[in-house]
Amino acid sequence: MKFIRVDMTTKQVKVEEVPQKYAGLGGRGLTSMFVADEVKPTCHPLGKNNKLIFAPGLLTGTTAANSGRISVGAKSPLTGTIKESNSGGSFSQKMARMGIKALVIEGLPAEDKFFVIKVTMDGVTIEDAPAEIIGKGNYEAIRVLNAKYGDKVGIALAGPAGEMRLPAANISFKDPDGNIRSAGRGGLGAVMGSKKVKAVVIDDTGAPGVSVKDPEAFRAAAKRFAKALQDHPVTGQGLPAYGTDVLVNILNEAGGLPTQNFRRGRNEWANDIGGETLAATIESRGGKPTHGCHAGCIIRCSQWYVDKAGKYITSGFEYETIWGLGANSCIKNLDDIAYIDRAMDDVGVDSIETAVTIAVAMDAGVIPWGDGKAALDLVEQIGKGTPLGRIIGSGAAVAGKCFGMTRVPVVKNQAIPAYDPRAVKGVGLTYATTPMGADHTAGYAVATNVLKVGGFVEPLQKGGQAELSRNLQIATAAVDSTGMCLFIAFAILDIPDGFNALIDMINAMYGLSLTADDVTALGKSILKAERGFNERAGFTKAHDRLPEFFEEECPPHNTTWDFTDEEIDEVFNF
Amino acid sequence: MKFIRVDMTTKQVKVEEVPQKYAGLGGRGLTSMFVADEVKPTCHPLGKNNKLIFAPGLLTGTTAANSGRISVGAKSPLTGTIKESNSGGSFSQKMARMGIKALVIEGLPAEDKFFVIKVTMDGVTIEDAPAEIIGKGNYEAIRVLNAKYGDKVGIALAGPAGEMRLPAANISFKDPDGNIRSAGRGGLGAVMGSKKVKAVVIDDTGAPGVSVKDPEAFRAAAKRFAKALQDHPVTGQGLPAYGTDVLVNILNEAGGLPTQNFRRGRNEWANDIGGETLAATIESRGGKPTHGCHAGCIIRCSQWYVDKAGKYITSGFEYETIWGLGANSCIKNLDDIAYIDRAMDDVGVDSIETAVTIAVAMDAGVIPWGDGKAALDLVEQIGKGTPLGRIIGSGAAVAGKCFGMTRVPVVKNQAIPAYDPRAVKGVGLTYATTPMGADHTAGYAVATNVLKVGGFVEPLQKGGQAELSRNLQIATAAVDSTGMCLFIAFAILDIPDGFNALIDMINAMYGLSLTADDVTALGKSILKAERGFNERAGFTKAHDRLPEFFEEECPPHNTTWDFTDEEIDEVFNF
Repeated sequence: MKFIRVDMTTKQVKVEEVPQKYAGLGGRGLTSMFVADEVKPTCHPLGKNNKLIFAPGLLTGTTAANSGRISVGAKSPLTGTIKESNSGGSFSQKMARMGIKALVIEGLPAEDKFFVIKVTMDGVTIEDAPAEIIGKGNYEAIRVLNAKYGDKVGIALAGPAGEMRLPAANISFKDPDGNIRSAGRGGLGAVMGSKKVKAVVIDDTGAPGVSVKDPEAFRAAAKRFAKALQDHPVTGQGLPAYGTDVLVNILNEAGGLPTQNFRRGRNEWANDIGGETLAATIESRGGKPTHGCHAGCIIRCSQWYVDKAGKYITSGFEYETIWGLGANSCIKNLDDIAYIDRAMDDVGVDSIETAVTIAVAMDAGVIPWGDGKAALDLVEQIGKGTPLGRIIGSGAAVAGKCFGMTRVPVVKNQAIPAYDPRAVKGVGLTYATTPMGADHTAGYAVATNVLKVGGFVEPLQKGGQAELSRNLQIATAAVDSTGMCLFIAFAILDIPDGFNALIDMINAMYGLSLTADDVTALGKSILKAERGFNERAGFTKAHDRLPEFFEEECPPHNTTWDFTDEEIDEVFNF
Repeated sequence: MKFIRVDMTTKQVKVEEVPQKYAGLGGRGLTSMFVADEVKPTCHPLGKNNKLIFAPGLLTGTTAANSGRISVGAKSPLTGTIKESNSGGSFSQKMARMGIKALVIEGLPAEDKFFVIKVTMDGVTIEDAPAEIIGKGNYEAIRVLNAKYGDKVGIALAGPAGEMRLPAANISFKDPDGNIRSAGRGGLGAVMGSKKVKAVVIDDTGAPGVSVKDPEAFRAAAKRFAKALQDHPVTGQGLPAYGTDVLVNILNEAGGLPTQNFRRGRNEWANDIGGETLAATIESRGGKPTHGCHAGCIIRCSQWYVDKAGKYITSGFEYETIWGLGANSCIKNLDDIAYIDRAMDDVGVDSIETAVTIAVAMDAGVIPWGDGKAALDLVEQIGKGTPLGRIIGSGAAVAGKCFGMTRVPVVKNQAIPAYDPRAVKGVGLTYATTPMGADHTAGYAVATNVLKVGGFVEPLQKGGQAELSRNLQIATAAVDSTGMCLFIAFAILDIPDGFNALIDMINAMYGLSLTADDVTALGKSILKAERGFNERAGFTKAHDRLPEFFEEECPPHNTTWDFTDEEIDEVFNF
């Protein structure tokens, strides 16, 4: 396995052996340990001392179902914390098959121009980026890069927002169909833009593929693992049929669907934007109601959303995006939402951060509530770099300052996503305490609070939530290290053999004999490294708090965010 | 003495006895102890849990020279730290003469309209603000309020920026001539605006005046104190003749005049914007070259800057403002700078924060370097609430994010003022460590590093700077509690009898027998309370750092910011 460092100051590329301390790590485990080791916690996220690291997971490149996620790490320009954000696409599997454990981009070029880093089996080169993609949308950039480098290459891309180094900029990854997947959260696209890397193009022609120590044991475990995914109602039925947007009606029913900038947890138009309506619309128009974001995905929660003429608008059309625009910004029309989603992907901004920022702007009176056309214009302004676009592209916390707002749903400057913490209290503790800033994926207590996966903890009560969030954050840090899609968690939480099969796959691949305890230990060590970085960067328990407006009652249950500081701090007591 | 609380939620006014624990405090000592006691450190600065406190100093209202400053305190919307900012004007002396120890504004009104708080000897009333001053500039607002409430009232005012709750908004105070003085730093105008208080109008008709326990001893001490101010070359000659702008040529000579967004410490046009040119220009046009910001000022470092026709443009035209526009933004024309200064006063924004933000915007290519007309337009856009105006009015840190910049000279999100920390290293330590965010006035080591007041510590070396900054910060916290202008420090640092006279005045007024040690103890206790608030708000030593670009060499001396973390942390080792 190789560890590749690209120094954008000197334009030197070093291909190193994998340092021994990183040998057993992949995905988030590797990116976070690396950032904690090598990035100065008080550095400027857009400066020469930040480093951007791409790492496939421990199982990426194998035949294991859903193992193709790519993790990206750095110090976040949005939050100032350590950051790992992961994505689908083909990039990760190509890296793994080429034997690349990590690709690190360091330094800052003196030149005022953008580059493409090309990674092939012959080595790594740094080339001038094609002039025609600078400032252009991601769909067009992928088209040009495909034409130049070949249809089959993997691509990681900083969009116009990343070029402008805006805090909400994501990194876009080409998916197997040439469309866009995103490492969305935390502004990693701005780090890529600051290093003047417009794209990383990866061509795995001639790659040897991953080596598995015990192929037979691996195959057997992989089969059991896939069966668990297919047997579980969420991963086997709900997600394939309706995508993640199936959650709209579920959360609305639970009273936890934040509406109108978190003023209430239920609305009357939820079904118009929910997964059932989405699937029916796609089907009636001849789109693809179910689709995978990377090769080997058997959950297939993605889809191709098309217009009335059957023409592709967007894919990877997630619940959180549809929530942020449809419920929280009151845009009641799926077509409007789809065009905004496409525009966010095209400009290269995190759809959660941007949707929440749009709601804050609506709350400030910048555009009317529910005005989809005006919201689309805001997103397009990001791409144009207008002052208003720059405010929106800087995320909810900055927009809140510019508009003088107190109702700004962020933790550590990152927008709170699609589950009201007063109605789904376990995930509220995750928002407050994860080292990532508000992030539902860091400890998805919605599973146990609402979906009754992994047991049941009453969502409106405080009891049991700290332990739930803690255990999920530990497990998630480990799962994020495998390259697995987080949605496998539904199956492994409920089906013991699914969890065992996951460990068996890792053991078979690497010739190890890990147990469940080792997985827990890995998760804890990752969280501790992340939290250690944050502490050195100046974060304390005082930052593990929700905004004070969550003291307000949230209809329909009229619950409040009522954890004491001590109760919140229990989550990281391990 | 009275302690007045105005609750803007309930519109109730309480006139209380002064709580015993605040009896010996005034100015910054009182505002900081109060905020540390009563404001939740993690609250939203623009929310219902923040409190805004106005307090005259211990000697305010007496005949002591230069004792008329008003301190304003709250949690800062700019920095998130505790904040004290002080100003000249007539407000403080009126409060003191009326026996008002503190005026506290709490809560938030439900109404979407602005109010005027009227304070008279008959009590405190809350009235609707005159519609014609909402959104209008401060000069016009003062004219309308004078017409309504009488020419002699004191006024504290939130300008258009404060109404919009922008983080750079200041609180403007009417001076004895009806012009504008500012509690500039830290966005306290936004706190006032959040509480929907457009103005506080104070009418001291019938006020009893302050009582002095031993009038004869007081008179004798006040005379010695005034003599010290007159004898010292800085307060007796330099400041009266040229104003604070006398520093331009001095700092340029010292290589510490930050130029072009802190790229170098010396420029070729300094004399065109320096105090000597300023004074000659004012004199040739028939303006007032020397003028006091409050009754009883004998330093008179202010002036009336006039246009070629002799018409008033601005006053309180400070070195830091002229530096920020003239050197750091390369606007080489004093008239241009004067009009921008007037516009900043009129809109109600901190001139240091705004000038530094303008330089960051120039660095980002938003407007050309040195373009005074374009800079004036930026300031006017703040008043209009355009998106670009909102970015500029949010201060340098937010603008840096929106423009994707790394060269953003802030500490704790507050703009670094007019002395390069690489060439005047003592004040660099003050920027890094003061609880206020970057603030030269919190420990003005420029005095000893450059002006050779209070001894001499070599400005380009690290030796002795931590002790210097520590001692000055302690002394300043005490001086800021007296209501004295900070410029008295020049005299009391060099002239022992001046310092003794200051203590003698306090003792004569209150019937005490304080010593120099008590003054030091007071200063330390204030700093500890402020730092304690900040720690509870989530600040650590990691925030006591300068931006990493100060690692660059600063011409002409080519020194860098080379303190280790441990050396910086020595400042608060007491």
